[in-house]
Amino acid sequence: MAGNTFGEIFRLTTFGESHGTAIGGVLDGCPPGVDVDRDRIQGELNRRKPGQSDLTTPRKESDEVQFLSGIFDGKTTGTPIAFMVPNQNQDSSDYSHLQNAYRPSHADYTYEQKYGYRDYRGGGRSSARETIARVVGGTFGRFVLDTYNIDIKAYVSSLGDIELNQSYKELDLSAVEDNALRCPDPDTAKKMTDHILEVKSEGDTLGGTITCVINNVPRGLGEPVFDKMHADLGKAMLNINAVKGFEYGSGFEGTRMKGSAHNDRFYKEQGKIRTLTNHSGGIQGGITNGEDIYFRVAFKPIATVMKNQESITSDGSGTIIEGKGRHDVTVIPRAVPIVEAMASLVLTDQLLRQKIRR
Amino acid sequence: MAGNTFGEIFRLTTFGESHGTAIGGVLDGCPPGVDVDRDRIQGELNRRKPGQSDLTTPRKESDEVQFLSGIFDGKTTGTPIAFMVPNQNQDSSDYSHLQNAYRPSHADYTYEQKYGYRDYRGGGRSSARETIARVVGGTFGRFVLDTYNIDIKAYVSSLGDIELNQSYKELDLSAVEDNALRCPDPDTAKKMTDHILEVKSEGDTLGGTITCVINNVPRGLGEPVFDKMHADLGKAMLNINAVKGFEYGSGFEGTRMKGSAHNDRFYKEQGKIRTLTNHSGGIQGGITNGEDIYFRVAFKPIATVMKNQESITSDGSGTIIEGKGRHDVTVIPRAVPIVEAMASLVLTDQLLRQKIRR
Amino acid sequence: MAGNTFGEIFRLTTFGESHGTAIGGVLDGCPPGVDVDRDRIQGELNRRKPGQSDLTTPRKESDEVQFLSGIFDGKTTGTPIAFMVPNQNQDSSDYSHLQNAYRPSHADYTYEQKYGYRDYRGGGRSSARETIARVVGGTFGRFVLDTYNIDIKAYVSSLGDIELNQSYKELDLSAVEDNALRCPDPDTAKKMTDHILEVKSEGDTLGGTITCVINNVPRGLGEPVFDKMHADLGKAMLNINAVKGFEYGSGFEGTRMKGSAHNDRFYKEQGKIRTLTNHSGGIQGGITNGEDIYFRVAFKPIATVMKNQESITSDGSGTIIEGKGRHDVTVIPRAVPIVEAMASLVLTDQLLRQKIRR
Amino acid sequence: MAGNTFGEIFRLTTFGESHGTAIGGVLDGCPPGVDVDRDRIQGELNRRKPGQSDLTTPRKESDEVQFLSGIFDGKTTGTPIAFMVPNQNQDSSDYSHLQNAYRPSHADYTYEQKYGYRDYRGGGRSSARETIARVVGGTFGRFVLDTYNIDIKAYVSSLGDIELNQSYKELDLSAVEDNALRCPDPDTAKKMTDHILEVKSEGDTLGGTITCVINNVPRGLGEPVFDKMHADLGKAMLNINAVKGFEYGSGFEGTRMKGSAHNDRFYKEQGKIRTLTNHSGGIQGGITNGEDIYFRVAFKPIATVMKNQESITSDGSGTIIEGKGRHDVTVIPRAVPIVEAMASLVLTDQLLRQKIRR
Repeated sequence: MAGNTFGEIFRLTTFGESHGTAIGGVLDGCPPGVDVDRDRIQGELNRRKPGQSDLTTPRKESDEVQFLSGIFDGKTTGTPIAFMVPNQNQDSSDYSHLQNAYRPSHADYTYEQKYGYRDYRGGGRSSARETIARVVGGTFGRFVLDTYNIDIKAYVSSLGDIELNQSYKELDLSAVEDNALRCPDPDTAKKMTDHILEVKSEGDTLGGTITCVINNVPRGLGEPVFDKMHADLGKAMLNINAVKGFEYGSGFEGTRMKGSAHNDRFYKEQGKIRTLTNHSGGIQGGITNGEDIYFRVAFKPIATVMKNQESITSDGSGTIIEGKGRHDVTVIPRAVPIVEAMASLVLTDQLLRQKIRR
Repeated sequence: MAGNTFGEIFRLTTFGESHGTAIGGVLDGCPPGVDVDRDRIQGELNRRKPGQSDLTTPRKESDEVQFLSGIFDGKTTGTPIAFMVPNQNQDSSDYSHLQNAYRPSHADYTYEQKYGYRDYRGGGRSSARETIARVVGGTFGRFVLDTYNIDIKAYVSSLGDIELNQSYKELDLSAVEDNALRCPDPDTAKKMTDHILEVKSEGDTLGGTITCVINNVPRGLGEPVFDKMHADLGKAMLNINAVKGFEYGSGFEGTRMKGSAHNDRFYKEQGKIRTLTNHSGGIQGGITNGEDIYFRVAFKPIATVMKNQESITSDGSGTIIEGKGRHDVTVIPRAVPIVEAMASLVLTDQLLRQKIRR
Repeated sequence: MAGNTFGEIFRLTTFGESHGTAIGGVLDGCPPGVDVDRDRIQGELNRRKPGQSDLTTPRKESDEVQFLSGIFDGKTTGTPIAFMVPNQNQDSSDYSHLQNAYRPSHADYTYEQKYGYRDYRGGGRSSARETIARVVGGTFGRFVLDTYNIDIKAYVSSLGDIELNQSYKELDLSAVEDNALRCPDPDTAKKMTDHILEVKSEGDTLGGTITCVINNVPRGLGEPVFDKMHADLGKAMLNINAVKGFEYGSGFEGTRMKGSAHNDRFYKEQGKIRTLTNHSGGIQGGITNGEDIYFRVAFKPIATVMKNQESITSDGSGTIIEGKGRHDVTVIPRAVPIVEAMASLVLTDQLLRQKIRR
Repeated sequence: MAGNTFGEIFRLTTFGESHGTAIGGVLDGCPPGVDVDRDRIQGELNRRKPGQSDLTTPRKESDEVQFLSGIFDGKTTGTPIAFMVPNQNQDSSDYSHLQNAYRPSHADYTYEQKYGYRDYRGGGRSSARETIARVVGGTFGRFVLDTYNIDIKAYVSSLGDIELNQSYKELDLSAVEDNALRCPDPDTAKKMTDHILEVKSEGDTLGGTITCVINNVPRGLGEPVFDKMHADLGKAMLNINAVKGFEYGSGFEGTRMKGSAHNDRFYKEQGKIRTLTNHSGGIQGGITNGEDIYFRVAFKPIATVMKNQESITSDGSGTIIEGKGRHDVTVIPRAVPIVEAMASLVLTDQLLRQKIRR
């Protein structure tokens, strides 16, 4: 109801503000008896955390997760899994000058309009630090999906004007982690890196897109008419900070095709029903058909720029938002594990929902 | 849980198959004392129904709504509003040849994979006739939104390759209903009409995009972090049949901008805090800021073409899906009221959710 | 949210007012492929309907159910099952004198306080006619429970001061339908019948209790900590019109026992873990242990008496509520199938919820 | 879905096992701007905690609550309020002998049946320590209810065979905290205390009942037909450990009355509509009518006795459960704040739900 819970059966509730005591979550509905690989959870958090390369903010946060419940002898018990990452390295005084000022294209003004009251330190609840809890929850989803061999892989497919021109089928997705940009093509990654350094020197920021591919998806997942697989994925992605668009399969480009060309023809191969093309993105009528799911997510440029910006305060008087602090030029590389985590939450939830019918 | 209910407080549950007894719904959570304008509900249904112009299928369905509960003396009582539209003009024998065959890019195969069993007549539950219930529910939302002066208007912004080049600010949206295409620019509408007739003669189909604009939105609506206003809108749209993508505000194009250009600068005008530009699409941090909400929805070309297509049956043997029946060349013009209805459901729900805080 | 839906996975939404167009419901989440025995559904409705014996109101209502969706070739399809029973024999003019008057211990005043507006005809939404939808939904639950051999049987265990002294183990529950009172002991049934006729002649009404027993319950059902099996059963029963109390297992009497006597000792019999006694009522820690579930439900005397009663109208002036119309002396015998139906909804829902874990 | 969340708008999710890292919860949907009185929260926890008097277990736990999010400058921010109480004084080795044994009338066996796996230390998730989180959540409810002057007060109304004979109207409820038993009549409290000491010397345990009264309830709260005020209260109480029954207003005794005597006659007093009697317990048709709500809750005797008990282990072989450790003779006095907390959660939730309609 208040928007802090995601999922129907595999349900993640997150809590925490960027400069409060901790960021964390409660994952309810995780099946019992699942082996918990804590190193993998921490590994995913490390992919998300700041300071992991020259391309990201030098802010150092250890982001070590502590578990409070729901795990016994290294396995899930079926009861709620609560966890938290204490906030460190917060210097709230950094933000005192923002107490009454509204940063452009941030959530300062809207949070105040909604709640009448806001924790102005570092974005409070609207900070992307909240996604820490999603990464932890999503990794538990991975533990479940692994038993079905379902694999989720995301990568940077554009940065500003620089686009990766190959389709996911033409790329070696095992190379995503080979560079700090999480772009599987080394040449494009190099161009993107140069672009970031150039824009950084201008004190400006960049947006881009992330593509995500899901392999080995069981047939029959997705709940029409209102919880279609792609609708749940779309909502999951649109809830990530800075996301402005979502498309799956043929997406916006597919609107230019004619039906006879767009239709995916069925055939049978090795006893399995398949389609020759996959404009459907692995989903027909909101339900998976066994082909790869793939989708693309648009991220706007980061709103915090290293330039002075004119704005106003809560009483309407003019003010200058100074460009200072330690911030990323783009969220894209660090958003890759977040996109994967949200996809994992959706897939796990839909998988468990379908179990009721078997 | 099973995907047939939309909304948290203003909740619509839909039921019905295209060739069953009726399509209908139950709207729960509508405030009491709302005046029910039955003509307006029927008017919205008429905008959606087939056979309304030369551009749409000649199939005739009266689509008259009957109310079963929740209304007394012309007003809502606060109890569930149940309604139905009996199915007529169904000739189930039309579909007997499809009992075991999978139409390409339809939901035949996936429904069978999900439920192990399907009503194969006319798409059954996956038919777009289900959206009748959404249009009825959405119109009740309009009754509530009207009291806040919130206005929702959608229009066709592209059909296949033909794009409407003006932004919504440059168009006269009161002209949307002036042509059968629901494109507010007469010249573009003419081009689109010609294109439909041409593609119809080929026995093929078209996709396109719909843009939707919402004016007079109160500040503070939307529930971060998981029910952000644009995430709920995105999910609503992605749940409409044939939708492949959603973007709001600057959308995918915005990923190419730099932060300093993309940021919307605040200013104060007539006692109200506004922004000079609106790349945010009226939503910052998932919460409305009082500027117009605008978004764009991608529809794939209709899967039912008037050409013979190769496919297979449930036992894997080859079959031909013949191109016959009475079908639209594109869903776009008839989808306009559906986009508006889904937007109305989201806005009303978020409006009522925010009431708790006041 | 608005209180018209019951269950998490096996979800029943009901609609309708006593003098509106129809009473009905939408059952969502029913597994696909379940055989639908329409005669049995109608049979359960007939157990509930008025006019079935001399003991119940002579009001005649055929209460024939019509299905609108979700069933194909005699089986559930997994999509929402919508159904309705049109209201007949309604003479709304019967109620015009009650437009502004508040009947004592009815819901007239409270509905008006809640919604600001009410359908005053025959109780509107607060009428027990709404339970028609529960009986239909509960019978679908029976179809599912039958495949697990789970059996639910309720009976009248007291009427006013007349109590059935035997425990359920000492009774022949197959005899419940042998008399109009649905009391399995013929002698007690005779005493109760005489008592009803006596109280009827006084123009007064009676309350009583119903006991319900559930056999062959699988182990492991129930969701602690907030959806314990007995808590869900208790809520289900307390939501039936006129119910004032619920106890299970040893219940209120059990509070007088000492722990050493109350504890149910485990033993193993034919490879199964059982308990020697069953003060726990088949539920420990909110989860079923395989023993019989049994519970008792208290119904207050019917508020509509055939005597004149003093009351007030909405403007506070005095009025007389006349004792007239065709009404039961007690709800108890007709409530037996309703108790069973609600128990069936709970068991089916908890059964499906546990399926996620297997 | 998995049973760890309570409430629709004012939603409490609890987590934690008795011998895990911490017990805690996330309260979502609390209105923003509510003053947080931490001393009062700790005070309520102290009423619940062990070792507070000679009558309760000498186990010492400080039970100090730590807040993780959702509070800023002493006020709620409208975002999720996460909190925890670290577990101390746990000696897990106390429980190693129980790893495979099923304690009679505990949840050992049923948790294992449900999850296939259990944290056997001290009851794990089924421990009453989980109610710590409810007390914290319920106190936040009190902060909201205080602004409406709604007052909730519970007290011990029977212990084993010893009953408090006065009705709540005849008692001075301000005296509840004057004795360790939380029984407002000193003479009865004395008798109960003696009885506890006597039964303690036998190594046995006791059950009893708690009565709860709610004053100044606004009219119109409660959501028929499935979330009636008394049904939500009943479910809340039945979800407290050891509860076996719930009745409100005239309850089970009311089933013996005739309708003409049971009906509550309306009258007008000082501009307000009231009833002369209150057999309805302040609720008619599931909606509050402004009179006092009162109800009674049955608690079974504690299952942990200081006597050796025969039982079996998971492989079916016989074992002896030894009576040892530090345990209460009865839960009743410590359950008083838990009953109040659960009532507070229900009232606050229903209050916020009704706000949507105004």
